[in-house]
Amino acid sequence: MRGPRYPAPIADLPATVPFVGPEALERQRGAPFRARLGANESVFGPSPFAIAAMQDEAVEIWKYADSSHLDLKGALAEQMGVTPANIVLGSGIDGLLGNFVRLLVAPGDAVVTSDGAYPTFNYHVAGYGGVLHKVPFAGDHEDPAALFAKAAEVDAKIVYLSNPDNPMGTFHKGSDIAAALDHLPDGCVLALDEAYIEFAPSGTTPDLDPEDPRVIRFRTFSKAHGMAGARIGYAVGAQGLIKSFDKIRNHFGMSRISLAGALAALQDKAWLGDVLRLVDDSKTRIARIAEANGLTALPSGTNFVAVDCRGDGAFARAVLAALAEDGVFVRMPFVPPQDRCIRITAGRPEDMDVLEQALPKALAKARAA
Amino acid sequence: MRGPRYPAPIADLPATVPFVGPEALERQRGAPFRARLGANESVFGPSPFAIAAMQDEAVEIWKYADSSHLDLKGALAEQMGVTPANIVLGSGIDGLLGNFVRLLVAPGDAVVTSDGAYPTFNYHVAGYGGVLHKVPFAGDHEDPAALFAKAAEVDAKIVYLSNPDNPMGTFHKGSDIAAALDHLPDGCVLALDEAYIEFAPSGTTPDLDPEDPRVIRFRTFSKAHGMAGARIGYAVGAQGLIKSFDKIRNHFGMSRISLAGALAALQDKAWLGDVLRLVDDSKTRIARIAEANGLTALPSGTNFVAVDCRGDGAFARAVLAALAEDGVFVRMPFVPPQDRCIRITAGRPEDMDVLEQALPKALAKARAA
Repeated sequence: MRGPRYPAPIADLPATVPFVGPEALERQRGAPFRARLGANESVFGPSPFAIAAMQDEAVEIWKYADSSHLDLKGALAEQMGVTPANIVLGSGIDGLLGNFVRLLVAPGDAVVTSDGAYPTFNYHVAGYGGVLHKVPFAGDHEDPAALFAKAAEVDAKIVYLSNPDNPMGTFHKGSDIAAALDHLPDGCVLALDEAYIEFAPSGTTPDLDPEDPRVIRFRTFSKAHGMAGARIGYAVGAQGLIKSFDKIRNHFGMSRISLAGALAALQDKAWLGDVLRLVDDSKTRIARIAEANGLTALPSGTNFVAVDCRGDGAFARAVLAALAEDGVFVRMPFVPPQDRCIRITAGRPEDMDVLEQALPKALAKARAA
Repeated sequence: MRGPRYPAPIADLPATVPFVGPEALERQRGAPFRARLGANESVFGPSPFAIAAMQDEAVEIWKYADSSHLDLKGALAEQMGVTPANIVLGSGIDGLLGNFVRLLVAPGDAVVTSDGAYPTFNYHVAGYGGVLHKVPFAGDHEDPAALFAKAAEVDAKIVYLSNPDNPMGTFHKGSDIAAALDHLPDGCVLALDEAYIEFAPSGTTPDLDPEDPRVIRFRTFSKAHGMAGARIGYAVGAQGLIKSFDKIRNHFGMSRISLAGALAALQDKAWLGDVLRLVDDSKTRIARIAEANGLTALPSGTNFVAVDCRGDGAFARAVLAALAEDGVFVRMPFVPPQDRCIRITAGRPEDMDVLEQALPKALAKARAA
């Protein structure tokens, strides 16, 4: 019995996960973390109205969700000044990036991203047989000019750019990205990942015609709206491109509890404002803790702070390992020179207390190693 | 500006939805349905413990779900007498079928299904460029011998078979399917859709070695467990095949509320028993209503009943339209001669009252047309 016959590129793909989740790390260490500051989740949670909406919707769970998602798309469209036909919902930005790569990338097609940018995007490109070309960060920022030049050089179908970026938290002005688009080669689409846009200064998102065929934006309820476990992301772009998702998406794939929660979350502007202030406070505290330990916090337009450990990647990895051993979950960039940093998510004051107590010990341990 | 460049087979795919959802139909008719009996949802809902578990989990929604799904996979494995490594979770059977087709089907690869079987499977096959070969139903049953013979003829990579089947509700003995597998061609995998297995008589699922490389089974919390809106399906098969899903799945794509609900639902055997009894009562009532109107109910191993309207497809479609106009949502098979039937989902006594009142009027209207 031969069993399944896998075609290329599937046969050659590794069975992998783009990130090792905190629960898997907890199982490895045999104890829960004391502070969960590694996945850029919002420890402040969603709006109480979102929680109530999800609890109310639980009794309706016997019904499939409306596959058109008109309620949530309508609310998003109004907020963004676009039409519902410019929006498609999906299972987080992760799911939408997978759909988007599938729409454009055939085996052998070129795709451009930054070296050290979001691994899940790379996972999807590899999964559809795309060929990934990487451009280095420039001064801890993603580099639109270099990305677009590389796209022209390799005839890329997609360029990925996160703004603000992950894992460094740096960002470009929206007007600079809009201007750089003049150098995006014809027939290439910019996948602009704005997962963290709510945390960034106003003016960070480019002011674009929603029908501009060169750009698709990705946003999420996982970060500022505190609903990572609900899996609601959305993509915003020209109607033709957005409509093409209907060729391949899992139409009845969304949780109706998640949809109800997202709608309520979107309407609670006061909660979002509170969260942004709490995140700012925590980022200030992270910077102070870093400084008190002789380290440097990078400026951040996100809900996390990249902290320069003032050594090489091996040293930062040792600090990370020591923090994990002591019950503090953080992550770090994968690629030099960004991997001199650890990446700490904003948390509650009690999370920051844990960090403040754990960091000097972790540094001492890493220095002694 | 050229915008996106779509490769084959994407460029030629239609933007479509495998089913028009009830909410879309309600928008078309301008009013809600009085009875929602068309999507084979469980109007009886999930276990109260599942509802409570989901409500409790709402406050944890700021965290991504554990991508390993070990809790739920462990409970399922114990119940099925397999290991967690034989199970993969996904966004309903729909999502898992998409993943499975992607794993095996390259453009031009042959796939076999029954003419009139699950459209969402066909949607995925078309979406990955597969070539679908269809075999007719035999006596309102899917026909394993003919399906497997066709698979040998066209060198198929996948054969799809639902047991019990949708849309007719008929079923084969598990032992007959196990015996038929001897004729499944080498290198072909049977996708055995058991979405309705909990409603079927014992002995309907084949007794197979979980490491048998010829079969992958698909099950769901959407039907008997009453959680269609939560999007939790699972696939059970040989460890090698199951592991291959890790090459392509959206690892952090599941709602943690849905996972918590499914775990609680699985543990409430008493509720499941109650639902099965209520479904049986409703199926008996549907058969009586059919008979009282001169129609015939087909035997069903599911939570729905195919009712033979004793005319052609055009007549059954007229009955369906008249029912919808009167606020009763049902669906029907797509292909003759099965499209002589309408397909009615089991409901509460009050839903059956609506059906009992609406069916004679719908029949009269269809006959007068």
